Amino acid sequence: MNGISALFTDFYSLTMAQGYWKNGLNRYAVFEMFFRRHPFGGGFSVFAGLDTLLESLKALRFSGDDLAYLEGIGLFDRAFLDYLKDFRFTGSLWAVDEGTVVFPQEPLVRIGGDLIQCQIVEGLILNTINFQSLIATKTARVWLASDKGSIMEFGLRRAQGWDGAMSASRAAFIGGAVGTSNVLAGKDFGIPVMGTMAHSWIMAHDSEEAAFEAYADMYPDRTVFLIDTYDTLKSGLPNAMKVGKKLAARGKNFGVRLDSGDMHYLTVQVRRILDEAGFPKATITVSNDLDETIIETLVNAKAPINSWGVGTNMVTGGNEAAFSGVYKLTARDDGTGNMVAVMKFSDNPDKTTNPGIKQVWRIKDAQGMAVADVLGLENDSGTGETIEPGKRYVLWHPAADYRHFYHTVEGSVERLLKLRLDRGKLLGEALPLIQIQRTLQSGLEAFDPSYTRLLNPHIYKVSITQGLRTLKLDLIKSCLEPPGEGS
Amino acid sequence: MNGISALFTDFYSLTMAQGYWKNGLNRYAVFEMFFRRHPFGGGFSVFAGLDTLLESLKALRFSGDDLAYLEGIGLFDRAFLDYLKDFRFTGSLWAVDEGTVVFPQEPLVRIGGDLIQCQIVEGLILNTINFQSLIATKTARVWLASDKGSIMEFGLRRAQGWDGAMSASRAAFIGGAVGTSNVLAGKDFGIPVMGTMAHSWIMAHDSEEAAFEAYADMYPDRTVFLIDTYDTLKSGLPNAMKVGKKLAARGKNFGVRLDSGDMHYLTVQVRRILDEAGFPKATITVSNDLDETIIETLVNAKAPINSWGVGTNMVTGGNEAAFSGVYKLTARDDGTGNMVAVMKFSDNPDKTTNPGIKQVWRIKDAQGMAVADVLGLENDSGTGETIEPGKRYVLWHPAADYRHFYHTVEGSVERLLKLRLDRGKLLGEALPLIQIQRTLQSGLEAFDPSYTRLLNPHIYKVSITQGLRTLKLDLIKSCLEPPGEGS
Repeated sequence: MNGISALFTDFYSLTMAQGYWKNGLNRYAVFEMFFRRHPFGGGFSVFAGLDTLLESLKALRFSGDDLAYLEGIGLFDRAFLDYLKDFRFTGSLWAVDEGTVVFPQEPLVRIGGDLIQCQIVEGLILNTINFQSLIATKTARVWLASDKGSIMEFGLRRAQGWDGAMSASRAAFIGGAVGTSNVLAGKDFGIPVMGTMAHSWIMAHDSEEAAFEAYADMYPDRTVFLIDTYDTLKSGLPNAMKVGKKLAARGKNFGVRLDSGDMHYLTVQVRRILDEAGFPKATITVSNDLDETIIETLVNAKAPINSWGVGTNMVTGGNEAAFSGVYKLTARDDGTGNMVAVMKFSDNPDKTTNPGIKQVWRIKDAQGMAVADVLGLENDSGTGETIEPGKRYVLWHPAADYRHFYHTVEGSVERLLKLRLDRGKLLGEALPLIQIQRTLQSGLEAFDPSYTRLLNPHIYKVSITQGLRTLKLDLIKSCLEPPGEGS
Repeated sequence: MNGISALFTDFYSLTMAQGYWKNGLNRYAVFEMFFRRHPFGGGFSVFAGLDTLLESLKALRFSGDDLAYLEGIGLFDRAFLDYLKDFRFTGSLWAVDEGTVVFPQEPLVRIGGDLIQCQIVEGLILNTINFQSLIATKTARVWLASDKGSIMEFGLRRAQGWDGAMSASRAAFIGGAVGTSNVLAGKDFGIPVMGTMAHSWIMAHDSEEAAFEAYADMYPDRTVFLIDTYDTLKSGLPNAMKVGKKLAARGKNFGVRLDSGDMHYLTVQVRRILDEAGFPKATITVSNDLDETIIETLVNAKAPINSWGVGTNMVTGGNEAAFSGVYKLTARDDGTGNMVAVMKFSDNPDKTTNPGIKQVWRIKDAQGMAVADVLGLENDSGTGETIEPGKRYVLWHPAADYRHFYHTVEGSVERLLKLRLDRGKLLGEALPLIQIQRTLQSGLEAFDPSYTRLLNPHIYKVSITQGLRTLKLDLIKSCLEPPGEGS
């Protein structure tokens, strides 16, 4: 990558950056990205997009053209633009592993660096992580709905733009897809590419049978006949079996794809007819505006489906098109080298943030099942509060109200946030996507199915430590009380 | 642009392409893109993305890397890959103007060319047009809901990936936004860039007042104070007015932005307090998960809002994340040089396509108001059926059933599909976006408001000509009747 434009940012990031720069406020600051609620009414989310983000941060630059454009706006000083000429992201970044199951309020990415750098990368971080996490979460739901079946991502034509398709293919594979129809995603990300045939293939031939014959001749090892162009049961299926018989004579199997009509009724009929005709191994693929709800219904009804082509709803989120991640300042150098914790209040209590530099610990029981996640205070060197096996803690509700419980850690504890950029230097390498997919699939095993249920799931506990609660309450107190009053 | 990868396509486009190539079927074919229903329960859609598409088509290539990747899959012959080496899009393309108000069933883009070329560009065409049309349509709804007010697009951080943000900024501007927060979109598309300040700006200073003061000092001509970081009415607004007084002394105005809380209650309070303090010209901007429904409610309630910052729901579609455009073969050379019309049948009647090479005419009455759109048969040279002023026609329901009406054209007729690529050669230049925005805004004027109502709109008539109906019924008849039977 030759460098990507740092102009991919909100305009206010640049006007504020100039302000920090002019007023001597470009000090060390810490921002955290977290989200406020799971999408799709679900009980879990999947963190994705990290390697994409790390690659972009490394390549972020203002080109000469970019700076000339900014100059033309008329608000930026020459000296500030000169400063931007050498802009590189040299901050540090901590993040949870890609493919981790995550929950609201938890810092997923923590950035420490110059205030200006942290501000300019806000849009890039949110854009990258929000979208890929949305799609990985959606796909994990689709995959679970299919009973961990074979999900093919077919979304390119309805995805939200070029990168809407590319990043969706990447995130869908993390979420559990077995492959994609998007050939460029196959090349760029090493995802298996898949597909069957289009209606145009049938219509470009003089007959459906001729079209099937021609395809089977060319691709005898991967022939899936699309059987709904004229009439699924009266035309498509009989023609598929005619040509399938010749494939069988060559020792080859075949499949059929249905793209319209009632999927339960039709797949039962098609399976019965295939079985009676001596094709018990012929596979049935379905497509047509599928989502996790439709798939769960078909699976529960025992519709005989071997493979699912899922597009639109999986690569866009369908009825929920955005992940609610936000990026907030949580601590800053006060000008004397001391880091002070800060927080945002709000008229909406759920928009109040958790102050300070934080870590997330995942506590498991002796059987390896997740019990609760805990947010507490550490600092950039990783010291501060800890949660350790064998010890007993009081854990508070993140709203910092009266709700709390005592817990003795009986199993393991995992520290979720890990250093990935150390003052601009990348630690570790980008992982193969299949490994990230495995991280997710083994991660899901640690959660009771009540948490991953599609509808009305059990709410997993995310708590805060005594230290974080005290800090939060102190800051609220100092804000609500007029200066000079209070203790 | 150096060329963009033609691998951005569905895998089956390439396997089918090899089939056409090997079997001598790479003849002239015509495909049409159309959509099946308006998004968002609305009564109109906006066509967008055409100039982006034309630029991409011109630059489409298979690189050496791309071909090496395809070779590695093991399904493609060396000779076919050599053929792809010189792949260029040299077909013709007809399209409606960007910014045109469009309706279901109407061909929006028509492609004529070699079957292989037409097939390979399917994904690119659908991806580009579907997404930008979705966002232009959404934004037009938001703009109408705001009573044609001032809509700023703030969606970068929640958009679906890099191009999800870039293309959304472009399409939102077409749909009626006055500007974007996305600086790169400002540079690339000439859209005005806009923004206020973030909560982090306030939190990076020792006090809210100091933060406001610093910003006003730097940007006295465009200061909008974000007033909800600590407490909108008790802290943010009083501090904004303190600093605003100093701006007023310098002859400058200011604004405030609210990002949380009840927008009706708060804006009424804020307006009253500003007016009483002698700031009747201070503006009020609101943001926070707005969409057309919330905006319409606030406008109807007469909430005193000058400007709207709209992000997530506008740049992703919100509760509906995809435009339902499809791309279907409608005619092909039968091998003797004759073009034959083809159609797809389906178990779902609404998935049955309209055959033949078609044009769309928009009929207006003597007052210039749109009466109906008509689909009829023409050919690549633009001859065939016509709809002309002063003449009387029988117009049929597109389902080709018994419904029909007679109409004498009293006003004008516009031929919507225009030739834009003539055998690979671009006709005309890309228009400035502001001109496309004006096309839309004047186009909307021609529709009775009952058609553009947000909820439960009046259904605009899209009809088919006698010629198209006859062709469709003939093809259905020849398909339903076994060969040798019937007349």
